[in-house]
Amino acid sequence: MAGKADKVKARLPRGLVDRFSEDIRAVEEMVGKIRAVYERYGFDPVETPIIEYTDALGKFLPDQDRPNEGVFSFQDDDEQWLSLRYDLTAPLARFVAENFERLPKPFRSYRAGWVFRNEKPGPGRFRQFMQVDADTVGAPSVAADAEMCMMMADVMEALGIKRGDYVIRVNNRKVLDGVLEAIGLGGEENAGRRLTVLRAIDKLDKFGPEGVALLLGKGRLDESGDFTKGAELNESAIAKVLAYVETGEIEANEGVEELNQIRALCAACGYDERRVKIDPSVVRGLEYYTGPVFEAELTFPVTNEKGETVQFGSVGGGGRYDGLVSRFRGEPVPATGFSIGVSRLMTALKNLGKLDAAEAVAPVVVLVMDKDAESLGRYQRMVSALRQAGIRAEMYLGGGGMKAQMKYADRRGSPCVVIQGGDERAKGEVQIKDLEEGKRLSEQIEDNATWRGARPAQFSVPEGELVAAVGRVLEAQKREREG
Amino acid sequence: MAGKADKVKARLPRGLVDRFSEDIRAVEEMVGKIRAVYERYGFDPVETPIIEYTDALGKFLPDQDRPNEGVFSFQDDDEQWLSLRYDLTAPLARFVAENFERLPKPFRSYRAGWVFRNEKPGPGRFRQFMQVDADTVGAPSVAADAEMCMMMADVMEALGIKRGDYVIRVNNRKVLDGVLEAIGLGGEENAGRRLTVLRAIDKLDKFGPEGVALLLGKGRLDESGDFTKGAELNESAIAKVLAYVETGEIEANEGVEELNQIRALCAACGYDERRVKIDPSVVRGLEYYTGPVFEAELTFPVTNEKGETVQFGSVGGGGRYDGLVSRFRGEPVPATGFSIGVSRLMTALKNLGKLDAAEAVAPVVVLVMDKDAESLGRYQRMVSALRQAGIRAEMYLGGGGMKAQMKYADRRGSPCVVIQGGDERAKGEVQIKDLEEGKRLSEQIEDNATWRGARPAQFSVPEGELVAAVGRVLEAQKREREG
Repeated sequence: MAGKADKVKARLPRGLVDRFSEDIRAVEEMVGKIRAVYERYGFDPVETPIIEYTDALGKFLPDQDRPNEGVFSFQDDDEQWLSLRYDLTAPLARFVAENFERLPKPFRSYRAGWVFRNEKPGPGRFRQFMQVDADTVGAPSVAADAEMCMMMADVMEALGIKRGDYVIRVNNRKVLDGVLEAIGLGGEENAGRRLTVLRAIDKLDKFGPEGVALLLGKGRLDESGDFTKGAELNESAIAKVLAYVETGEIEANEGVEELNQIRALCAACGYDERRVKIDPSVVRGLEYYTGPVFEAELTFPVTNEKGETVQFGSVGGGGRYDGLVSRFRGEPVPATGFSIGVSRLMTALKNLGKLDAAEAVAPVVVLVMDKDAESLGRYQRMVSALRQAGIRAEMYLGGGGMKAQMKYADRRGSPCVVIQGGDERAKGEVQIKDLEEGKRLSEQIEDNATWRGARPAQFSVPEGELVAAVGRVLEAQKREREG
Repeated sequence: MAGKADKVKARLPRGLVDRFSEDIRAVEEMVGKIRAVYERYGFDPVETPIIEYTDALGKFLPDQDRPNEGVFSFQDDDEQWLSLRYDLTAPLARFVAENFERLPKPFRSYRAGWVFRNEKPGPGRFRQFMQVDADTVGAPSVAADAEMCMMMADVMEALGIKRGDYVIRVNNRKVLDGVLEAIGLGGEENAGRRLTVLRAIDKLDKFGPEGVALLLGKGRLDESGDFTKGAELNESAIAKVLAYVETGEIEANEGVEELNQIRALCAACGYDERRVKIDPSVVRGLEYYTGPVFEAELTFPVTNEKGETVQFGSVGGGGRYDGLVSRFRGEPVPATGFSIGVSRLMTALKNLGKLDAAEAVAPVVVLVMDKDAESLGRYQRMVSALRQAGIRAEMYLGGGGMKAQMKYADRRGSPCVVIQGGDERAKGEVQIKDLEEGKRLSEQIEDNATWRGARPAQFSVPEGELVAAVGRVLEAQKREREG
């Protein structure tokens, strides 16, 4: 054992967190509901590993000792660069390209998994987080995009988010491209500036039109003194971009036509503007989108860290990425998909009080009154019998006497404890102490409230009736919880 | 889009694999059953991130440019070394140490998660694999170890593995330490040689007593010509070790006494020698075990790659690791745990035919006969209605005519397709084609078999009865599958 002096510090790298029971159960339940919707839409699960070749992920290539920021990367034995995936879309593109012949096409699939970003973590921003994605590969028609939007609306409702509390906002990169061409930013040589303009537009919610205008022009100084370089557009170009973003007005083009089709398909199935809405300010920050882009927004009000009332905001998004699989295949492979951020969504559902069902009943604790081998065997046998009957149960395994054991059961939130000392054993009995009823009785005494017809908080039963008696206590507590 | 010339190769690094629907569903089901047992024993879920500080994992420290082999490691922005976890036990020790005050003690917890080994991959050996662990921290008594053994036996049975087809084998490092002391390998200065001896003993199943004798002595040359250095024991020491391993005979000591207690506790609950068995050859390769060690073995015969009939072997193991949490706390914190290897176990269950239930019914496909906007809207509405009724359904989103669409439905394994061309639309009807019944009828015709009272393979219904009619087809197919 390490001495105090040379002991290791128990700590996690920044941006990484442990998950406790309550959140794990909540995520489990949430992901289960999302999966059920995806399955109903005909999607099947497919999963890729967490490590990929850096070049297959396609965003960062090692140009120095170490690949760019943003991804966690390291070299394999054979000196090739490996990275932890930064999303689930790039690996899916690699998967489809690698298994192209054996997959039915169109290929609908979904997955839940951890992704990693080697970024500066902040409040609510982690370096490891979970996404749940659905993708359709091999479907060129916008019907596939419309399906994504409707599916996301169904996911929101399956999670208990009321109609009116969410909206799926849709735009089209081709529409944005039309605007960019009109201000002279067409062509391969302007790809970098186009992305800067798109990212500026993406900040409309955050900074308003004035802030976006600064980002489109010379740049913007934020409150902390950090300066973000702008896209260096001239006044007239800035005005054109803002006019489009605020009014959505643009000449008819292929992108507008596609948006009309998405709207029509959604409307045909009853997904009207309150659920799936065309919105010219939707951009999505990722470079690989080529057509429709979507965002799932929660519209109910929350209070932000500055005390202001704001809409909750985005919990997921996606779009069409016709170029990603093509990188591997050298032939066009259309694809569209959607990604849900699990931790944002969980925060939202907690806000809405939709995650209460995830609590599990704590185990019954069988106390250890005597520590001789024979008694231990007897306690263990009681625990075993309870477990065989499907009841969560434990024998107390720590040190200390009755007081420490009762404190443990209380800390665990146990429904009841089972006690057998020498006296009870002599009579062939066990005592059962109902901790919830005990708590309620003591509160009533404190409140000086009237006695209500209660079950006894502590009682004895013959040893052979232990399981049935504990079952009755659990049943009574369940009825009480449910009201 | 990339040209053929500069396209990226779609490939995975060696030792990493994609997972397809069938395996994902099977693992889901399997882990669900394991979790249910852990929960019944009073364990709660806790999860740690995939990345940890290298020193917190405690096995490898960077002594050169890069930490030792075995783990994937990389430096953070602040130059500190990070690693992908190589098991779930070391991170749990960090977690408990970091959250010590807020946890009830003893602390029972479980987790399922990916772990990573930067090793040479081989058949059935991956660089990313999933483990499902359960651990009890803060329980010094061997009752906690006995509980682990009984829980693992229950897990095996919950998975459908029959009594007699598995055994939980138990030994004690303290017993082994007694043997090692008897041959003069006590003390801190012999830690390295002790580990070499333990790893030699661990190979008994694989190489037999002769092979172990070589590994205890000068070393062993394997069939491929690789030489493994031995522990350099003398003849008499080798004889003593082998005598112990083969007969289990040793003077009574603390370790033997603990094993007797474990046996007694298990026996008291009906877990006799056929389920939990003391076995002197169990070692476990990991360095951190300090007391009882266990191994879950499947004993049914399988054929190995050489065509020999062998026992299936280990699917998990664990033991007491009283030193791991102490590394952080500078005070003794006893702990014991068990780890199940998911992919080995899945292979075993496939061998036993216990994973058939995991298949999902494929989606109904609504064919696209006309591609005008109005027709698409109508097909989409049918799909939507089926989905609202909880039926997996898709609109065909690919290119091609009737033939391509039927081929797609066939490849998906769809139960039926829905067809509405101009004629049906004029009559307000849809056609439903039952693909399973169609296949059966065509097989009967090929077999020249007698006609049996069958449902029609293709029929029309009014548009408003689509959902009910598809529901009846699915119901009929389900009955046929089950009986």
